Amino acid sequence: MRVIDGTHDPALTSWVESANRQGGDFPIQNLPFAVFRRSGSGEPLRCAVGIGDQVLDLALLGAAQPLEGLAARALAACAEPALNCLMALGSEAWRALRQGLSEILRSGSRHAAHAAGALVPQSDAEFALPARIGDYTDFYTSIQHATAVGRLFRPDQPLLPNYKWVPIAYHGRASSIGVSGQEVRRPYGQLKPTGAQEPQLAATSRLDYELEVGVFIGTGNPRGEPVSIGRAEEHVFGLCLLNDWSARDVQAWEYQPLGPFLAKNFATTISPWVVTFEALAPFRSPWSRPDADPQPLPYLDDPALRVLGAIDLELEVALETAAMRERGAPPQRLSRSNFRDSYWSIAQMVAHHTVNGCNLKPGDLLGSGTQSGPGSGEAGSLLELTDGGRRPLALESGEMRTFLADGDRVILRGWCARQGFARIGFGEAAGIVLPAA
Amino acid sequence: MRVIDGTHDPALTSWVESANRQGGDFPIQNLPFAVFRRSGSGEPLRCAVGIGDQVLDLALLGAAQPLEGLAARALAACAEPALNCLMALGSEAWRALRQGLSEILRSGSRHAAHAAGALVPQSDAEFALPARIGDYTDFYTSIQHATAVGRLFRPDQPLLPNYKWVPIAYHGRASSIGVSGQEVRRPYGQLKPTGAQEPQLAATSRLDYELEVGVFIGTGNPRGEPVSIGRAEEHVFGLCLLNDWSARDVQAWEYQPLGPFLAKNFATTISPWVVTFEALAPFRSPWSRPDADPQPLPYLDDPALRVLGAIDLELEVALETAAMRERGAPPQRLSRSNFRDSYWSIAQMVAHHTVNGCNLKPGDLLGSGTQSGPGSGEAGSLLELTDGGRRPLALESGEMRTFLADGDRVILRGWCARQGFARIGFGEAAGIVLPAA
Repeated sequence: MRVIDGTHDPALTSWVESANRQGGDFPIQNLPFAVFRRSGSGEPLRCAVGIGDQVLDLALLGAAQPLEGLAARALAACAEPALNCLMALGSEAWRALRQGLSEILRSGSRHAAHAAGALVPQSDAEFALPARIGDYTDFYTSIQHATAVGRLFRPDQPLLPNYKWVPIAYHGRASSIGVSGQEVRRPYGQLKPTGAQEPQLAATSRLDYELEVGVFIGTGNPRGEPVSIGRAEEHVFGLCLLNDWSARDVQAWEYQPLGPFLAKNFATTISPWVVTFEALAPFRSPWSRPDADPQPLPYLDDPALRVLGAIDLELEVALETAAMRERGAPPQRLSRSNFRDSYWSIAQMVAHHTVNGCNLKPGDLLGSGTQSGPGSGEAGSLLELTDGGRRPLALESGEMRTFLADGDRVILRGWCARQGFARIGFGEAAGIVLPAA
Repeated sequence: MRVIDGTHDPALTSWVESANRQGGDFPIQNLPFAVFRRSGSGEPLRCAVGIGDQVLDLALLGAAQPLEGLAARALAACAEPALNCLMALGSEAWRALRQGLSEILRSGSRHAAHAAGALVPQSDAEFALPARIGDYTDFYTSIQHATAVGRLFRPDQPLLPNYKWVPIAYHGRASSIGVSGQEVRRPYGQLKPTGAQEPQLAATSRLDYELEVGVFIGTGNPRGEPVSIGRAEEHVFGLCLLNDWSARDVQAWEYQPLGPFLAKNFATTISPWVVTFEALAPFRSPWSRPDADPQPLPYLDDPALRVLGAIDLELEVALETAAMRERGAPPQRLSRSNFRDSYWSIAQMVAHHTVNGCNLKPGDLLGSGTQSGPGSGEAGSLLELTDGGRRPLALESGEMRTFLADGDRVILRGWCARQGFARIGFGEAAGIVLPAA
């Protein structure tokens, strides 16, 4: 179980002035990890933490050996071009590094003068995927999403009988995962228009986003050795934002019987920032489900889960059309939801994934599935917001949308906020739709 | 299109005498790639080709620089602990290396004396996965398998309407793929016994194998740029055998709506040998389908496909129970089939996989799906052979099997044979079932 310690103290300030700005994503209590280099520099990639409007270059910082012991070993792992080495070191090392970096970045730190030389403005940084992602698994943890999508694809049986028992998931495509800023060319695919006798190859006309939380695995498990639910969170390094782009017309035609394939694997966009589980400790909230629903089987149940198994993480999706961009109008928020409402928790995802002995590895990515909330306007995809394309959205720009148009930029954002604690932001995961080739 | 050249000449012999033995898997016309080290040596892994009962250590061979130009560059890539570097070099480099190795290994070669020092008996070698597999995709290309399995899972609609149009596939798990010899602990999983009110966690009682062909991608494609069917085969490095272990009771309960997940991802076993597409050139056969069936959409069709799109590759699965092992009885063949009968070809798999811009990478693995043939006894899984477990198999040992028992060793084999050409063998992909933990 992650604990709240001095690194979460809301009174902490940093000598990096921008980190002390009210409402920013990256106060000293956050310290999310990323992989970067200076834009256009061709420099080697290396790990960093975000602080205010800067990144702290951990390779450069580490060269001066400001930390000792486990924290120093963890910092040394950050000279790599991906977080995998740090992830593999385990939760004690992550905690030690967090503590060390927090001390270095605090107002009055004796390291300030030196560490200032390792700062790079985020505006001068180009980000890469935070980890080499070996396997990517996408869950389906929002019962609201599962029900809404089920209604469209299977009107007779929206929520299947296994849903409340099994944390449903499928394997996704790792090669096409990209970092915020990803360009997504409208894909072609085989689809069968309504009423058509035969399928055809066409550019999708039902391109959609999905608002998800990504979960980066830190330490893995050997093949054949399940991770118990009580130990599951120890294997989690941190969270990011994830857009599971989807071609709904392709999906409808291809998905039976083996699940989504080309409808999803052309692109997945994640945020450059991985917010650590440590940073999220103050925002844990009880996990529960309605008494009338089946309670989880023992391998998916745990007392700690009932106390603090969920995460109070606000999510939102915003759309910037080409017309908005031309006029300098800001993106329009399309919906909000909260990861707290997920029907299955992260610990349950990990325990279920490994109960058969499936081996997870450092850097593996789990998607939460689209996070649609119980309220109106809390749908995490256009499919849901427009009732399968039947009720177009009227945008403030005067434009209409059922599904995404070329030039649309989709921006996911996330943040944790709680009275008495510093706001922890996730930055954004943005991607833009290019016309079909 | 791969051509038949001098390397296929059936009159070729090797100074490695065991390669000239009639009916062996690894004559000089084959030269399949693998990754190995001497058993228990702790040496670095490196690439090799199989020749007779030996492997030729390509790292050691390469140190003497016996080749020039493109072939030398390809040979240098074989000092790596995986085939990915060689795969990335492309089909011209693969062909040049094959030509060079064929000349080195021929009877009378001036390199014989030196190259003999780079031979290691296969019995002294331990094999690793031939490539770092980034993404693993499993297709479903046997219409006999799809129909038979569909009948069991969906009696009302065995073959779904998309099957004859879409080369159905799903993403599998890369982390749990192992090489022949893999131990497979009987997995636990959530399942719902017939007639039970609620699901439970239990060790699977319906553990099965699936007889598949694996396809290793050589050169990849950039994200957003589909591979046309006419160029698809240029991206294929070679083929292996693949056992997609499956827990049928878990599968039945979990697979809707997103496809198989824990029922499949606990283990996948492949052969150590990758037989190159070059070596298979003499065994290409026409691809066709019944006139009454829909013909492929243009992006999946190609004149060359109709001429030589399929591969005449014999497959078989054999079972060795613990009792057979104790008695020294040989494994019993359970079924045979031929990859030639696949409803979809390899080129169609590649073209379909990338039509939406999904990027393939060197070392990615495609599974063909279970290869069940049209004849009786040609079913590639126990699920089919026992009619869903309703008709137990009586083994020659006097034992009965519906699904796999602890201690069962499953052995997949494959070979190409054609009058006037040397037999090209695939070795085997074997794995053994351990009791549940």
